[in-house]
Amino acid sequence: MLHDAGSRDAEFIAAVRDIRERLLRIGGAAPGGDYECVLMQGSGTFAIESVISSAIPRGGRLLVLVNGAYGRRIVEMARVHGIEVQTVEAPENRKISPDAIDERLEGVTHVAVIHCETTTGIVNPIAAIGERVARAGATYIVDAMSSFGAIPIDLNGVHADFLISSANKCIEGVPGFGFVLARRGRLLAAEGSARTLSLDLHAQWQGLENGGQFRFTPPTHALLAFHQALRELDAEGGVAGRAARYRRNHEILAAGMEALGFEPYLAPEDQSYIITTYRYPTDPEFRFEEFYARLSEMGFVIYPGKLSQAPCFRIGTIGRLGVGEIEALLAAVKDVAHALMRAAFTLV
Amino acid sequence: MLHDAGSRDAEFIAAVRDIRERLLRIGGAAPGGDYECVLMQGSGTFAIESVISSAIPRGGRLLVLVNGAYGRRIVEMARVHGIEVQTVEAPENRKISPDAIDERLEGVTHVAVIHCETTTGIVNPIAAIGERVARAGATYIVDAMSSFGAIPIDLNGVHADFLISSANKCIEGVPGFGFVLARRGRLLAAEGSARTLSLDLHAQWQGLENGGQFRFTPPTHALLAFHQALRELDAEGGVAGRAARYRRNHEILAAGMEALGFEPYLAPEDQSYIITTYRYPTDPEFRFEEFYARLSEMGFVIYPGKLSQAPCFRIGTIGRLGVGEIEALLAAVKDVAHALMRAAFTLV
Repeated sequence: MLHDAGSRDAEFIAAVRDIRERLLRIGGAAPGGDYECVLMQGSGTFAIESVISSAIPRGGRLLVLVNGAYGRRIVEMARVHGIEVQTVEAPENRKISPDAIDERLEGVTHVAVIHCETTTGIVNPIAAIGERVARAGATYIVDAMSSFGAIPIDLNGVHADFLISSANKCIEGVPGFGFVLARRGRLLAAEGSARTLSLDLHAQWQGLENGGQFRFTPPTHALLAFHQALRELDAEGGVAGRAARYRRNHEILAAGMEALGFEPYLAPEDQSYIITTYRYPTDPEFRFEEFYARLSEMGFVIYPGKLSQAPCFRIGTIGRLGVGEIEALLAAVKDVAHALMRAAFTLV
Repeated sequence: MLHDAGSRDAEFIAAVRDIRERLLRIGGAAPGGDYECVLMQGSGTFAIESVISSAIPRGGRLLVLVNGAYGRRIVEMARVHGIEVQTVEAPENRKISPDAIDERLEGVTHVAVIHCETTTGIVNPIAAIGERVARAGATYIVDAMSSFGAIPIDLNGVHADFLISSANKCIEGVPGFGFVLARRGRLLAAEGSARTLSLDLHAQWQGLENGGQFRFTPPTHALLAFHQALRELDAEGGVAGRAARYRRNHEILAAGMEALGFEPYLAPEDQSYIITTYRYPTDPEFRFEEFYARLSEMGFVIYPGKLSQAPCFRIGTIGRLGVGEIEALLAAVKDVAHALMRAAFTLV
């Protein structure tokens, strides 16, 4: 983070190449195989928009599978670009059912789904959905923003044509860019289809291939930090090792929160180890803003809810966190809940 | 750079607010006055595209004043978005003449110009051009990527409606985002006109105004570093202090390169103190790649040329550089030139 690399520097270009190859391998794809890796400046949303606005040609028809805010965001994106878009919607606490999409695939050229919908933490069955999409001959776009690197994904196995994630989620880098893993044939077909200059996925890939430089100034420090984060992922045992730590984080959180009387929003079988949603306590003295602020003062940053259907808050268990941090969080939650809800709150 | 702030954290939100106010003041605008500041993730090009794709309504007609690669890039952007675009072109070694645009303003709704065209280092007369644009009632877009913070600019004085720059140029931050200083009325008029989701300038501003949060994950580390960079700009005496250092850097470079026999591409009166372009020596033994690589090995990173009309290279004199670094560069250039062009090169 403190090394000021030049973006045309040979060492920096080598780091970018290694980043792209490592990302492919995390997705079960060999460099030089069927998939390509494109890095895109901006937040993860920029990387998703680079796919939506580059890969769907004029006349394309997109089907978005929606069970949360991030699915709705892709719908919004498509509308801004004048792309014909339809949805299959499921309640926020239900997975997208592969059976529900079969009859909706006719005439559809592209299908987009969120892998781990961080609105709730639910994980959609991307492999089973991908099978239906592939059978229908459509292009399959998977938003794996908060899952890639911590939930095993085999790109070819899930039939993904475009998979998108970001530097600052499960790879544990810092924010500044996102990335797209793309089936080469689909990426090549996107040439000339982009509706923007900056987010042109094919042109960005060409730039990275021809000499390894970004078309436009890259966030050099964030990229070097990400390179180190990828090495640390390897040192932890790759996706399996990271998944084990996050799962343990979640299990300790879930047991502790249950003991404190908090009710999870999702059924246990639908709940990922990425982020967990809890309903507000029914105690009338509970005020989320106060709960959030006191935890934040103690060094614990939780997430407000993003649900349209129920008042909830969320706790993430990804990032450089382990058992110690989760136990400390639980102790803080207990103290704050006690202070806020003296009378009625169920405490064991 | 090493502090991992939460993007919803109160301290981080306060830093973002202070950054936006400081940028306005650098442009001679008071917070709460006629101008607003919008930060945009990505490189400077992303920030320019956010203006071009958000501020020009359907039916708008853009005139781009072109005397280098960055002007051409705005033309390309407009074409991608289907915006009707015309150009006034000048040779790469000539400033845009305000007189040349008068007869071209009829029917034009927006005019875009590059302040310091880093293709060469030439500085266009943005105030005189702005007067003509304002008189014609058009909206004036100034790309001040490589000048803002080091060449004094009074937003209202130059009649700028939108001025764009980036974190990693004369403010001396690290790459990761750009910023737009916008006349409030013009910004408000851009509501609903955006052709993308991520680069929607008005929506981005609304997000920053309502609670101070970015719509999409910001590059938190780059923003905190930029906050510190703004304090260091102040400590150096603001734009005047920074301009003095950069001017001195340039003067020493220009004298030293002249003594070594290198020929500048621009006339001295057109040359900025931001970046200086030199023609390749006529010596047949000069190979730029070798020249670049040897300097790079010694720790000096120069720029390849970007000219369509003449083989040149460029040397930047902005960033955390002073007399010592420029003198060391000159010594290295002398050594490398000597080694590469033993026979014919003119050395004093």
